[in-house]
Amino acid sequence: MAAAAEDLYIPTWEDVLAAHERVKPYIHRTPILTSRLINELAGAELFFKCENFQRAAVFKVRGASNAVFGLSEEAAKKGVATHSSGNHGLALSYAAGRRGIPCHVVMPRTAPQAKKDAVRGYGGLITECEPSTSSREATFAKIQAETGADFVHPYNDERVITGQATCAKEIVEDIGELDAIIAPIGGGGMVSGTCLTLSTIAPQTKIYAAEPEQADDAYQSFKQGKIIAYDAPKTIADGLLVPLKERTWHFVSKYVTDVFTASEEEIVNAMRLTWARMKIVMEPSSAVPLATILKNRDTFAGKRVGVIITGGNVDLDKLPWLK
Amino acid sequence: MAAAAEDLYIPTWEDVLAAHERVKPYIHRTPILTSRLINELAGAELFFKCENFQRAAVFKVRGASNAVFGLSEEAAKKGVATHSSGNHGLALSYAAGRRGIPCHVVMPRTAPQAKKDAVRGYGGLITECEPSTSSREATFAKIQAETGADFVHPYNDERVITGQATCAKEIVEDIGELDAIIAPIGGGGMVSGTCLTLSTIAPQTKIYAAEPEQADDAYQSFKQGKIIAYDAPKTIADGLLVPLKERTWHFVSKYVTDVFTASEEEIVNAMRLTWARMKIVMEPSSAVPLATILKNRDTFAGKRVGVIITGGNVDLDKLPWLK
Repeated sequence: MAAAAEDLYIPTWEDVLAAHERVKPYIHRTPILTSRLINELAGAELFFKCENFQRAAVFKVRGASNAVFGLSEEAAKKGVATHSSGNHGLALSYAAGRRGIPCHVVMPRTAPQAKKDAVRGYGGLITECEPSTSSREATFAKIQAETGADFVHPYNDERVITGQATCAKEIVEDIGELDAIIAPIGGGGMVSGTCLTLSTIAPQTKIYAAEPEQADDAYQSFKQGKIIAYDAPKTIADGLLVPLKERTWHFVSKYVTDVFTASEEEIVNAMRLTWARMKIVMEPSSAVPLATILKNRDTFAGKRVGVIITGGNVDLDKLPWLK
Repeated sequence: MAAAAEDLYIPTWEDVLAAHERVKPYIHRTPILTSRLINELAGAELFFKCENFQRAAVFKVRGASNAVFGLSEEAAKKGVATHSSGNHGLALSYAAGRRGIPCHVVMPRTAPQAKKDAVRGYGGLITECEPSTSSREATFAKIQAETGADFVHPYNDERVITGQATCAKEIVEDIGELDAIIAPIGGGGMVSGTCLTLSTIAPQTKIYAAEPEQADDAYQSFKQGKIIAYDAPKTIADGLLVPLKERTWHFVSKYVTDVFTASEEEIVNAMRLTWARMKIVMEPSSAVPLATILKNRDTFAGKRVGVIITGGNVDLDKLPWLK
């Protein structure tokens, strides 16, 4: 079922070890929280890895920092570039800022001012484009040609996947053996990193991916054995809109035990439950794993389960349970 | 200036050590979080002790557990009682539940259903009274006479103060020497516990109390050198409405360096800032220390400051920055 292109470089455990040493000065070793009440509701022992407390409030600084600090001095001088206006744009801007190199972020001029402000807040240099794929690609190509900046893809990049793999490494180091780990899946960077780590140091631990029903392209891909991509899915879990690519498909198709989905209502309920009982602020995408655990009780009953809370960037003025 | 009644038992450091051993199985050792951005705003190095992650989401389980688990077998059988319908009611219900003894909570019948549900959720046995002091006192006396339950006051109780003292002990153990610690002040239980600990193991660390302007009875007491009590103050920081009593006045008058106040708007802003940047859910009372730090920059400039986030029990449907 694996569909890895022959020319892909598949990162190794040694790459993960090197990445962890490389990024440690620039990331938090985030805490792992538990909740007795949520354990009771789930009928399982859940360990929440709180990447919402990560730098820039998102796990993506792991991959971004690994890419940025892995660059040679010469390459680094030219900076890095991406066209993600979401969490990866923040994370890459943060990492580049720590190294003192430019980070170019191509964003549609129609993007919310708050997103532009957030990227600039982390030192990112925004170039605006028209809100179309053709304009974005043309603008990005121009920026790259002018600057020679290194393109860091949000997830289809082995340096990024290797960086994300440090998260599961910390979970295993801190909690010990687990029956399962579950993470949200969008493009699959975090899930791929989790696969990379667990397939080496804890191959008995099952890996699950959690996805919104309304953007279930990874679920469909998994079931059909090939990458399925949607044009413009809509879900409150707006960090999970993008499709798998060949580097993440390699890991998802090879190591994931199952992909579970949750409805919008289930996601909002899990999000509110987490805020109310664990007292943490996290974004809707991060609630999808708990939502799927609560509706697949038989799968997780009595198990020790790591749950990756991927990020905390949410609009506090627009909470989804308040109409 | 101290006004300790001669018959008060003043807890010792040995009491704190014993309390910490006693309560450890029933409390979390809560994490201490930091925020680079908030440090920049404050011009100081702040260490946030997150008691919003504590059992029952409030530091008060420390004192309540110390009282409950310090009871003799015979006394314990009769249970404990209180008339706090707020966080202390939750905390005492939690601690009693862990020991498997009854916890009687006298509450006005007009109290919000959510508060009654929360107390019952932790196993508390509610007896309703009319919403008046006379009815509350009569009802409470009746319950005590009938049950022989041990009255655990929310703060004017040396067992409670000694339990709260374990919080500052953990801060010093985890962070080392600090220039200052600041906590919200209502009845003064947490501040008194902090004084008890620091006056023994870190007497060079200054202790500040933070209070809403609209319920500034501790501030007035501190300035006038005697306990001032208000009838019915109103503030969003609804955990800080009650006045000092003789046991907490002893510590506040003897060891506190200063009491700072903040307006309602400053409290809400500090609360929102903490949610937005630290990604934690905490109640308005817990935001008062940061609010006062941000407006007293000269006092804290360049200092290492412990900030006690006292609790996380907030109505997620009524966030104060959303009108």
